[in-house]
Amino acid sequence: MKIKEYLLVKKQLVEDALHRFMLESDGTFDDHIEAMRYSLFAGGKRVRPILCLAAAEAITDNPRLLNDLILVSCAIECIHTYSLIHDDLPAMDNDELRRGRPTNHIVHGEAEAILAGDGLLTFAFELLSNPKSDLPQLNRLQIINLIAQAAGPKGMVGGQSLDIAGENNDISFEQLQRIHKSKTGALIRCSVQAGAIGAGATDEEFTCLSEYGTSIGLAFQIVDDLLDATSTTELLGKTAGVDQQLGKATYPSFFGVEKTRDLALNAVDNAKQALIPLGNKAKQLTDLADYIYLRTC
Amino acid sequence: MKIKEYLLVKKQLVEDALHRFMLESDGTFDDHIEAMRYSLFAGGKRVRPILCLAAAEAITDNPRLLNDLILVSCAIECIHTYSLIHDDLPAMDNDELRRGRPTNHIVHGEAEAILAGDGLLTFAFELLSNPKSDLPQLNRLQIINLIAQAAGPKGMVGGQSLDIAGENNDISFEQLQRIHKSKTGALIRCSVQAGAIGAGATDEEFTCLSEYGTSIGLAFQIVDDLLDATSTTELLGKTAGVDQQLGKATYPSFFGVEKTRDLALNAVDNAKQALIPLGNKAKQLTDLADYIYLRTC
Repeated sequence: MKIKEYLLVKKQLVEDALHRFMLESDGTFDDHIEAMRYSLFAGGKRVRPILCLAAAEAITDNPRLLNDLILVSCAIECIHTYSLIHDDLPAMDNDELRRGRPTNHIVHGEAEAILAGDGLLTFAFELLSNPKSDLPQLNRLQIINLIAQAAGPKGMVGGQSLDIAGENNDISFEQLQRIHKSKTGALIRCSVQAGAIGAGATDEEFTCLSEYGTSIGLAFQIVDDLLDATSTTELLGKTAGVDQQLGKATYPSFFGVEKTRDLALNAVDNAKQALIPLGNKAKQLTDLADYIYLRTC
Repeated sequence: MKIKEYLLVKKQLVEDALHRFMLESDGTFDDHIEAMRYSLFAGGKRVRPILCLAAAEAITDNPRLLNDLILVSCAIECIHTYSLIHDDLPAMDNDELRRGRPTNHIVHGEAEAILAGDGLLTFAFELLSNPKSDLPQLNRLQIINLIAQAAGPKGMVGGQSLDIAGENNDISFEQLQRIHKSKTGALIRCSVQAGAIGAGATDEEFTCLSEYGTSIGLAFQIVDDLLDATSTTELLGKTAGVDQQLGKATYPSFFGVEKTRDLALNAVDNAKQALIPLGNKAKQLTDLADYIYLRTC
């Protein structure tokens, strides 16, 4: 299957599952549930859940395991969505546009936007511990621990704290790397790792996929920096040029656009190299790496 | 052991464990970790973790199980602390005093306070899935699911959303009960239930303790409403009279102070009734129920 078709098929699988698992208005918590749904069903690309499923497919073709991992991939998307809602808040990046629509706090108010993020984050762990899953219990606990670490104080949330503190301050390239690695990289890498654990990867396979996850996370962030600097608000669906406005250091601010493009390509190559021991089973992951770079062209 | 002494001993146990498990500044995420620690070590009464441990002791005296439950009780305290940080935010109750000290956002800024809450919530699930725990895997997954549900969109977060929406609006007593049950009651009840599951309670024991948890959660909230209406800021360590200022419905606003006192006593009695089948093993839980009422006298 060509990568574009693969992405479409998997995206639909994730959308359907999110609609199946996500809470619906129930006459009691309507405002809260609507606020969560507003951002969860806002047309995201579903990259993290797809990475989770594609990593699992590089390890196993057991349909039962792959099916159970859909729940995990939905949980990861809930966590990603919560992070966007909180990042956009007035006290953070104060952004009014996300995925071509007004941000959550513009529509639902600041209090409800904070709570929508809190709700999605908590709900993710409800999904991960859903008693209907048939994944081995030990693997499920490992996945929960991995995701909590990646999303937590020394991962995504810690990275956002560094990012906020770095605004309008001169930071070193080393600090920028640390922000990227924790704020964006950790959740992307753990999406791949969660798929690997759920699929029953060997230690060697897990190591390959972890390296892939690290490099693809970096590639993704460099491309994001590039797009913020070179694309338009219309094409991005979120305000372009925000990094510069907020005085945020980025890859282009350190290296310029051309060199940044080379660095993105380099990260993509590293990601693909890491997959070599997995052979042809990792084809979709390889193509996904190329696809991420193509977004910049 | 008398209840006051019991509470002191258990509180110290929880404090020590929180200090042992909680992240320390590491040179990278210092601001974030300090903001989390600021609220976590602010002199809380540790009621929820103590309820978790006391419920477990009503079921088992196995020291290994009781020891492993300390991790669970710390996770619950992290979730409780995150909820206080977010409730105090300017977009929510906009409170400046908590436990006799300036609230998190006053000291660490609004962005970092939001992130400190996010970090504590996520870290709670890292603790709950800590690979060092010896609790049976199935029980651990059940506890995670229970806590995620109690803290999530149809529990604590959903309740906070209802609470915010109810400010300055006429709400019915039925709506007030719904807010209390979800916002405060759910996490208190699940603290008791988590202890029960971790201790290997039978279905019958779990049912008794769940009923106890429901009633004690209600008693706790009624007493909280009473204290807000009748106590002073100095005694409470947080701003007194806030409910009235925010136009929030409370038990005293529906029933007056005297009748509310009766209702608190009634809830305490129900809690104690639920424990009867457990016999003398539940003595500390019984005394704890009485102690909650004594706060109002």
